[in-house]
Amino acid sequence: MNAYIISIGDEILMGNIVNTNSQFLADKLTNMGFDVRKIISVSDDTEQIFRQLDESAGHAQLVVCTGGLGPTSDDRTKSVIVKFFEDKLVEDPLVLQDVKNFLIKRGRALNETNRKQALVPQKAKVLRNRIGTAPGLWLEKNNTIFIFLPGVPHEVIDLYTHTIERQLKEYFNLPVIYFRFVHTLGLPEAELAEMLQDFESSLPQEVSIAYLPSPEDIKIRLTSRGTDLRKIKSQVDLALDNLITMLGDAAWGLDNDTLQSVVKQIFSSQHLTLSTAESCTGGNIAHTITSVSGSSEYFKGSVVSYANEVKIGVLGVKAEDLSRYGAVSQQVVEQMAWGVRGLLNTDFAVATSGIAGPTGGTPDKPVGTTWIAVATPNGVVSQKFLFGSTREVNIRRATSTALFMLISQVRKFKT
Amino acid sequence: MNAYIISIGDEILMGNIVNTNSQFLADKLTNMGFDVRKIISVSDDTEQIFRQLDESAGHAQLVVCTGGLGPTSDDRTKSVIVKFFEDKLVEDPLVLQDVKNFLIKRGRALNETNRKQALVPQKAKVLRNRIGTAPGLWLEKNNTIFIFLPGVPHEVIDLYTHTIERQLKEYFNLPVIYFRFVHTLGLPEAELAEMLQDFESSLPQEVSIAYLPSPEDIKIRLTSRGTDLRKIKSQVDLALDNLITMLGDAAWGLDNDTLQSVVKQIFSSQHLTLSTAESCTGGNIAHTITSVSGSSEYFKGSVVSYANEVKIGVLGVKAEDLSRYGAVSQQVVEQMAWGVRGLLNTDFAVATSGIAGPTGGTPDKPVGTTWIAVATPNGVVSQKFLFGSTREVNIRRATSTALFMLISQVRKFKT
Repeated sequence: MNAYIISIGDEILMGNIVNTNSQFLADKLTNMGFDVRKIISVSDDTEQIFRQLDESAGHAQLVVCTGGLGPTSDDRTKSVIVKFFEDKLVEDPLVLQDVKNFLIKRGRALNETNRKQALVPQKAKVLRNRIGTAPGLWLEKNNTIFIFLPGVPHEVIDLYTHTIERQLKEYFNLPVIYFRFVHTLGLPEAELAEMLQDFESSLPQEVSIAYLPSPEDIKIRLTSRGTDLRKIKSQVDLALDNLITMLGDAAWGLDNDTLQSVVKQIFSSQHLTLSTAESCTGGNIAHTITSVSGSSEYFKGSVVSYANEVKIGVLGVKAEDLSRYGAVSQQVVEQMAWGVRGLLNTDFAVATSGIAGPTGGTPDKPVGTTWIAVATPNGVVSQKFLFGSTREVNIRRATSTALFMLISQVRKFKT
Repeated sequence: MNAYIISIGDEILMGNIVNTNSQFLADKLTNMGFDVRKIISVSDDTEQIFRQLDESAGHAQLVVCTGGLGPTSDDRTKSVIVKFFEDKLVEDPLVLQDVKNFLIKRGRALNETNRKQALVPQKAKVLRNRIGTAPGLWLEKNNTIFIFLPGVPHEVIDLYTHTIERQLKEYFNLPVIYFRFVHTLGLPEAELAEMLQDFESSLPQEVSIAYLPSPEDIKIRLTSRGTDLRKIKSQVDLALDNLITMLGDAAWGLDNDTLQSVVKQIFSSQHLTLSTAESCTGGNIAHTITSVSGSSEYFKGSVVSYANEVKIGVLGVKAEDLSRYGAVSQQVVEQMAWGVRGLLNTDFAVATSGIAGPTGGTPDKPVGTTWIAVATPNGVVSQKFLFGSTREVNIRRATSTALFMLISQVRKFKT
């Protein structure tokens, strides 16, 4: 069952925004068993939108379009829909009520602009939007189902999750796809590939492997497609078990795990508490940990000690060590970890001190040099890294490496 | 001058990663005057890659492809290039040296897998990769320039910035495009559109307006294309001035400004210092501020006080106020802001306390309820917001609103 995803909006072709809608939809449709064959972005141009719809009808069983449904003058999708489906716009009383309710909740009034949101193509099945004003639309032409969604990412997510997924499952008879992920950290792609050469050639023909590197880690995906779920599932799961054994400590999680969700699993289940002391990561470790709902159960807080006086005054780092060894040193990062562990009274603490860049590097300590320490009930461990990339990547890598070290330590503590 | 961007990789069609490369390239190419007509993603399938190259040759003057140049078995772009351009692979000694140097710097050895990176199509101009092992390639067919780049985002950025941009400028005779942005916060899109209706109709024909909403803010873009840069520049700049006047306090920045870069401009130039005390934002304000290079000049640090005992013990919030009014209250958030301002000895401080969700809401204080306070040398101001969305969006909106309030306060302080 082939699917196309079409994103509409000048802001995409001009590079003003990252197209997260396509990624979200590609992930969800793939998981349901659709074969996403193309993802296309076109501008807010009525002719280009029309041509893209026309090229897609009959070539894919499903076309999901996002964008251009808003109330402002640069939103042109609805006028193209009317032409393409030879339809007309009518005011939908239910949608009008939704728009009114949405505005009332926010203390705002209906005006001519947002009233237009209630105009929908007569032939369309309306997909009501619970958190925005533009509804989704479901139409059919040449045996292709077209779904039109607004462009605002959290509205796309909400509409898909609460309405569209169920309707697609009812409408289509979908094949079976099964895949699993292993998340690794610490080994570069070429070394991983070398290490897994024999494993790759031993895989059953139906099972494919892919390496998905990001600045933080490398995910390995094993995929199989077919009709017999039990068969492909057992093939992939068996290969996954072998893979995990081969990877050892480098494998920190599976499938939808994130470093922060693994931290949650361990700390929640063992009733342990956690704090952070951050210099080069500037609060990003705390932010990453608290992006998980329920993190207040185990995460007590953080001291972001950007200035040396905060390292000394709040965390208790010795002034003489700061001047002798510098802020980016084993001595200082270990004292930061111990300091925050004591101050916030937690079982574990993680600390970072590094040169995020692009300035501040020296021949001895080039940009990317980063010390990371983990304080545990049994003492403190620390390690030096050289990330050596852009500021953003250095911060992200220091964050993920710190959480990876924390996970390794707390897993050892458990046993 | 038309350009296509093609992303190659199953991971995109399966939705495993967000396609940031396309956004980066679309932004850069648009800025240079290219008209990006299509952005297409196809899978790591030799036939599909070939077909997409074939459909693009002759239709765009420039095609930039990313992905599939890596050394592992799922990277297939190079074999397609050889077929499409009727070429063969040869080992390039300079690239081999680059790969060796790259590995030496990281204490790793050359193996068969990464040696393959030095194999390049004979007809290609090699674009050397300074921070990775796969070089870029420049080839021509049917009057179309094809540029192939690796898929790793920071390698794409580095290759583009240091090599490709210059070469494109030399090769192509590019038209002129000019656009400006105004960043706004606090007004919903429909209200903005209503407010700017007369402004829109007064714009010269060549100037177009677009609203780019994100969960945090709404950007307004004014664009003009033509041949006479002076003319279109003066049209857009004049319209921009009118727009800024109309928007008043809601306009917080222009063009490439971010909230954190505006914070840097003001705090650096006025030699002021800043700290944060964060509950619901969990360190994200500190992270956002420190994502800017040079932030250590004015940002001293943060206390992320997730647990109430940290609010009391470290920030000095009164225990009786916490139990009487709750953590999400005006009293507590103001004491947090004052507390961290005193503890870290800064001129300004910003504090947040809210219910990020999805759990923890009550009828009185539903999910999304957020108090934000700004402590200044003249006192403290605070305001309550109801964001009411997902956890991630609530955190992002609390962060941007806090920085927006901080900017408003420090601008008032200046005058």
